[in-house]
Amino acid sequence: MAMKKKPVTGMKDILPKEMAIRDYAIGLIKETYRSFGFTSMETPAVEHIENLTSNQGGENEKLIFKILKRGEKLDAAVESLTPETAGNLTDSGLRYDLTLPLSRYYANNEANLPSPFKALQMGPVWRADRPQRGRYRQFMQCDIDILGEPDILAETELVLATTTLLGRLNFKNFTIRINDRRILKAMAAWSGFKEEDYESVFITLDKMDKIGLSGVKEELIGMGYSEETVSRYLGLFPQSEEAEDGVDSAANSTDAPEQLKKLQTTLGEYLPEEISNNLATIIAGVEGAKAADFRMKFDPTLVRGMSYYTGPIFEISMDEYGGSVGGGGRYDEMIGKFTGQATPAVGFSIGFERIIMLLLENGFEVPGAAAKKAYLIEKNMPADKLQKILAKARTEREAGTIVNISVMKKNKKFQKEKLAEEGYTDITEFFKDREID
Amino acid sequence: MAMKKKPVTGMKDILPKEMAIRDYAIGLIKETYRSFGFTSMETPAVEHIENLTSNQGGENEKLIFKILKRGEKLDAAVESLTPETAGNLTDSGLRYDLTLPLSRYYANNEANLPSPFKALQMGPVWRADRPQRGRYRQFMQCDIDILGEPDILAETELVLATTTLLGRLNFKNFTIRINDRRILKAMAAWSGFKEEDYESVFITLDKMDKIGLSGVKEELIGMGYSEETVSRYLGLFPQSEEAEDGVDSAANSTDAPEQLKKLQTTLGEYLPEEISNNLATIIAGVEGAKAADFRMKFDPTLVRGMSYYTGPIFEISMDEYGGSVGGGGRYDEMIGKFTGQATPAVGFSIGFERIIMLLLENGFEVPGAAAKKAYLIEKNMPADKLQKILAKARTEREAGTIVNISVMKKNKKFQKEKLAEEGYTDITEFFKDREID
Repeated sequence: MAMKKKPVTGMKDILPKEMAIRDYAIGLIKETYRSFGFTSMETPAVEHIENLTSNQGGENEKLIFKILKRGEKLDAAVESLTPETAGNLTDSGLRYDLTLPLSRYYANNEANLPSPFKALQMGPVWRADRPQRGRYRQFMQCDIDILGEPDILAETELVLATTTLLGRLNFKNFTIRINDRRILKAMAAWSGFKEEDYESVFITLDKMDKIGLSGVKEELIGMGYSEETVSRYLGLFPQSEEAEDGVDSAANSTDAPEQLKKLQTTLGEYLPEEISNNLATIIAGVEGAKAADFRMKFDPTLVRGMSYYTGPIFEISMDEYGGSVGGGGRYDEMIGKFTGQATPAVGFSIGFERIIMLLLENGFEVPGAAAKKAYLIEKNMPADKLQKILAKARTEREAGTIVNISVMKKNKKFQKEKLAEEGYTDITEFFKDREID
Repeated sequence: MAMKKKPVTGMKDILPKEMAIRDYAIGLIKETYRSFGFTSMETPAVEHIENLTSNQGGENEKLIFKILKRGEKLDAAVESLTPETAGNLTDSGLRYDLTLPLSRYYANNEANLPSPFKALQMGPVWRADRPQRGRYRQFMQCDIDILGEPDILAETELVLATTTLLGRLNFKNFTIRINDRRILKAMAAWSGFKEEDYESVFITLDKMDKIGLSGVKEELIGMGYSEETVSRYLGLFPQSEEAEDGVDSAANSTDAPEQLKKLQTTLGEYLPEEISNNLATIIAGVEGAKAADFRMKFDPTLVRGMSYYTGPIFEISMDEYGGSVGGGGRYDEMIGKFTGQATPAVGFSIGFERIIMLLLENGFEVPGAAAKKAYLIEKNMPADKLQKILAKARTEREAGTIVNISVMKKNKKFQKEKLAEEGYTDITEFFKDREID
C-alpha cells in the first residue's frame, strides 16, 4: 500500500505551535467583532458550480477545485464524454472566497436574518493557484460584512472593527488607505477614457507603487491611449518631488478633506459632491473614534482587484509586510443577482494567514496562557493509586492549570527535556511503591 | 444568470442562533481538552485519493467527494477516458474523517511533535451519504487522540477528558459503555467461529439492542453458523428475565470487575488476563476521578463499526438521544501503515453535530454572554456628531458591552421590535439636532 505522507500539493499541515496562535487569534477576532454587533454565520465549503462560475469571482473562477459528480450522474457524464463536455463531470466545487457564498446565504435566509445583517465569517477557502512560498491552496478567510445598510456608517464601523482587532493583536503603525470606485471612474471619464477601458486602465494604475508615475504613463501610452488623455489623467494625481516614483498619491487624514475638495472641484459634474463628502466623513469618523495606532489615508491610486465593488474601497498596509494584509469595500449589486432585489452591502476581509505569519515571525506569545504542570507516572500504576493521581489532576485542572500526565519512559532525562520544550518545567513524579499525597 | 439560492444537496447554512452555540461549544471544547494537555492541530480538508481509498475508512470510502484533476492532467485523463478509467479523473478528495489525516500528519511531522502526542482536532468532514433528517454531507468532527502511549492511562484520560467536557456542557446521566476488540474476538473464538467470520458475526451482535437475543440468534443461524456455536456464543452474554430483549449485557462499574473476571475464567487461554484487568482498571480510574454525572458500563455486546480498532473501545449513549453521541478506541496498527513503524494510538470522537442539536432542542443559553446595547442614529449624521457617537460606543465596547449601531428606519417601531428579538432591549436614539452626551 503506497500511503503518501506529505499533504496534497500546495496545502499544509498546521503544527501545534502555530495552532496555539491561530486558536488565540480566532477567539480574539470573534470576541472583538461580536462587540461591534456582528454575529457568526457559516456556509458549506462546497458550492454549486453554477454559482462559482457566474462571473462574480474574477480570476478566482479559473482556480476552482471542482468536485466530481457521483453515482449514475457520473456514469452518464463519463459515457457521453468528449473533451468539449468535460464540464459535465462536475456539479459543485470548493468555495474560492466567502463573499459569493454569503450572497447565496443571504438570499436563502433573508427572512430569518436581522436587517441590517452584520455577518462574521471565518473559514477555509480553496484556490488551485500556482504554489509559492507563504501562499497555500487552502487558507482561512476572515470576513465581516454589513448587508442592508446604505449609510456610510457601515464603512466606518467596518474600518473601526478591523483596526480595533489589529490593535488588540499588537499591530501598530499600519495604514488604512481608502478610495471610492466612483472617484476612480470619474477621474477616468474626466480624462477622456471610454467606459469599456476603465478596468484595464485601473489595472495599470494599480501598479503605481511599483512602477511609478513614469511607468504608468509609459504603459498606458503603450496600450494605445492618447498622450493627451494620459497626461490629463496623471495630472489628477498629486505630484511630489520627494517621492521616488514621482507621485505622492495618498493624503493623510488631515489633508484628505482638502484634497478631496480640490479633486471634486476639478472633476465637477463627473463626481457628485456626496461621494467625496462621504469619504471625508468616513475618515473623520474613524479618526475620531479609533482604538488602535494607525494612519488613515485617502489614496486615489487605490484600485482593489474585484470589479464587483461599487463605492468606497479600502486596504490595510503594514510596514512589516510589503503587500496588503486585508481590504474590502462596498458591493451594492452582488446580492441582487441572487435575490432579484438590490441590497446594499459592504465588507472587510483581513488576511488571516498573513497576520498569523507575521505573529509567528515576531515571536508572538499568547497572553494569559494557563500554567502548565506535567505528571510522570510509573508504568502499570495500580488502580487505587492511579485513581488518586487522576483525582489530583482533576483538582488542578478545575483550578485552571493544564495538567499533562504521561507514563515514565526509560530515558527519563530526555523525556523531561522534551516536556520542558513544550513549556512543562513543573514536573511531579509518581511511583508505584510511594504514597500519593 | 441562474444563481442557486439553496446550499448544495445535503449541506446546510448555519444561522446566527446556532452559530452562537457552536462558537461557545468550540471554545469550551478547546479549553477543556487543553487542560488535559491536548494541543490543537489541523490537516487540509483535501487528501490524496490514494490515502482516502487505502481501506482504512471502511464504508466511508464509498462516500468520498472526489476532486477533479486540473489543467493538462485533466485533459490527458479526459482524452483517454473509458468507463473503466474514470478513476483517473481524480487525484484527491475531501476527507471523510479526521483519523486517516491524523495518521498521515503524524507520519509527516513526527520529528516535530511531542511524544506521546496528544492531538485535538476540530474540523469539517464530508460524506456523500444519502441525505436524511439531522444528517448532513458536511459536518464537524471533534477528535482527541493520544499517539505513542501504549499504557491504558491513555484510554482513561480520553474518557475523563470527554466526560468532563460533556458535564461542562450541562449533560448529565449519560453512559459510557466500554469493551475490548480482543474480548470480542476471544468470545467468538471460544465459541467456535472462524477468524474470517468474526467481522460479520460482530455486525450481527451489534444489533443486540435493536433485535434482542432471539433476533441475533436467528440471524446468526440464518447466516449458516451451527446451532451449537451460536448457543455457546450467546451463552456468554449475561441473560436477564427483566430485560425486554432477553439480554442484560452491560455491567455497571461496581459489577464490571466481577463480570470481567467471570468472563476471563470461562474464556481461559482465549483471553489473556491482562486484557480484562486493564478494562477493570480503566473503569476504576474513571470512576475515581470523574468530574461529571455519568455511568460507566462494561458491555460485551459493544462492537464499534471500524475494523481498525485493536484494543479497548468505548461509546457514549444519552437518554435524550437514541443512538451514540460519540465513541472511540485503540487502533495500534494504523499509524504504522504510514510510518512503517508500529505506533500505539487511541482516540475519542464526540458527535459534535448531535451535541449541538441536543443543546438547540433543549433551549441552551450561552452562559456569561455580554450585555447588549443598540444605538439608533438618524440618517446622514454630521461628521462631528458621528464621531462622538462612535467614541461613546468605543468606551462601552472596551468595557465588554456589545454595541450595535444602526441607522434609523422609517418604521422605527418595527425596527425596535426586531432588535429586541436579537436581544437588544437597551436602545439609545441619537438625533442630528440634539446634543450627544
